[in-house]
Amino acid sequence: VDHLSERGPEYRTALVQLLAGLAYGEFSGFMRLAADARLAPTLSESAEISSLAVHEYENFVAIRDYLAAMDVSLDEEMAPFVDSFEEFHQRTQPKDWLESVVKAYVGDAIAIDFFREIASYLDPTTADLVRNVAEPSEYVEFAVATVRQAITRDPAVGGRLALWGRRLVGEALAQAQRVFSEQEALAGLLIGQSEHAFPDLAEVGRVFARLTTQHTERMERMGLQA
Amino acid sequence: VDHLSERGPEYRTALVQLLAGLAYGEFSGFMRLAADARLAPTLSESAEISSLAVHEYENFVAIRDYLAAMDVSLDEEMAPFVDSFEEFHQRTQPKDWLESVVKAYVGDAIAIDFFREIASYLDPTTADLVRNVAEPSEYVEFAVATVRQAITRDPAVGGRLALWGRRLVGEALAQAQRVFSEQEALAGLLIGQSEHAFPDLAEVGRVFARLTTQHTERMERMGLQA
Repeated sequence: VDHLSERGPEYRTALVQLLAGLAYGEFSGFMRLAADARLAPTLSESAEISSLAVHEYENFVAIRDYLAAMDVSLDEEMAPFVDSFEEFHQRTQPKDWLESVVKAYVGDAIAIDFFREIASYLDPTTADLVRNVAEPSEYVEFAVATVRQAITRDPAVGGRLALWGRRLVGEALAQAQRVFSEQEALAGLLIGQSEHAFPDLAEVGRVFARLTTQHTERMERMGLQA
Repeated sequence: VDHLSERGPEYRTALVQLLAGLAYGEFSGFMRLAADARLAPTLSESAEISSLAVHEYENFVAIRDYLAAMDVSLDEEMAPFVDSFEEFHQRTQPKDWLESVVKAYVGDAIAIDFFREIASYLDPTTADLVRNVAEPSEYVEFAVATVRQAITRDPAVGGRLALWGRRLVGEALAQAQRVFSEQEALAGLLIGQSEHAFPDLAEVGRVFARLTTQHTERMERMGLQA
């Protein structure tokens, strides 16, 4: 593929790992959100979380088709990421509808923030794909309104969901760390020696700081303490 | 809504029931197919059945938005159909991947055939909506290829899946009968006295005969005896 030729084989390896990981993240998100739709108290609320599931499936398709054009075997390349995502979902199984609403919002938004950060280290063609996938869905307003209403009805809910939000981020970071320690090429893309990698660990720190700030802002938007 | 004014209030009642039933059928199909995606042996096969799930969600959205424009409360109107569809899905829970592939194909196709039959009894605007929803998805080719391959590998599979196909149709008809006996306005649309209803029971019989023939053709396409 043309847009990869100037970067060499190491970049290609890292890129395939990155996109396969993103693809599986979107696909597992689709399956989990569709399952969580059963927790909704009404059919129309069930349809709202399903709309995010469908949005994530479409993101998966966009990345899958891009990888297919690079002659990549999807099943093979996604396989190394299955355990991390499944473990994340198993350790953050929502116990009720509100937990699933918060998880869907927080999980999708962290992914979006990460997509936007990583896009600046990619070739322009792939960066376009990743930025498109990072377009937020309409689900955001629904999540914010639902959580705010629930807290108005019962303020104790706020404390419980704030704890839940902290746990979600903790588990997400733990799995992200695991992925980067297992996938060397991917780690090299981020903190390697190439001119396109993060310049240094201080920059990695700044990225994390931005992700954390954005998470805090989102929690506040829902009326929750981060 | 303009396109309903010439048909009177009974038609409107029947139409709302019909569309609410179709909407819930598509939505429950989405949730069940997304759950069945977990049975797939590979991620790419899982993605194939998920594509049909997403297709059914989009059909649900099209019908939902049409009903919203008629000022209909979706949750209220869909509620009477929940039990029938849930009972159908519970009584036809796939035990393995091939059963879920056949169920998805047969279930979706019977719905499509029914949509096409019913469209000719509706006002032109609603008929357009229903015919759009009845566009088959690309999943069909995948189902046919998957089942044919499985039978080539192990011919005994053919007998088991043929029985399964018969059971699926039997359960679908049983629930359809239940719906029509419970929803009077809907039954009136089909076998009522109005000029737009089925002219007589003989026509109902012909519709059933056509649905059965189409089912038989589909089973044969997969290499199965109906």
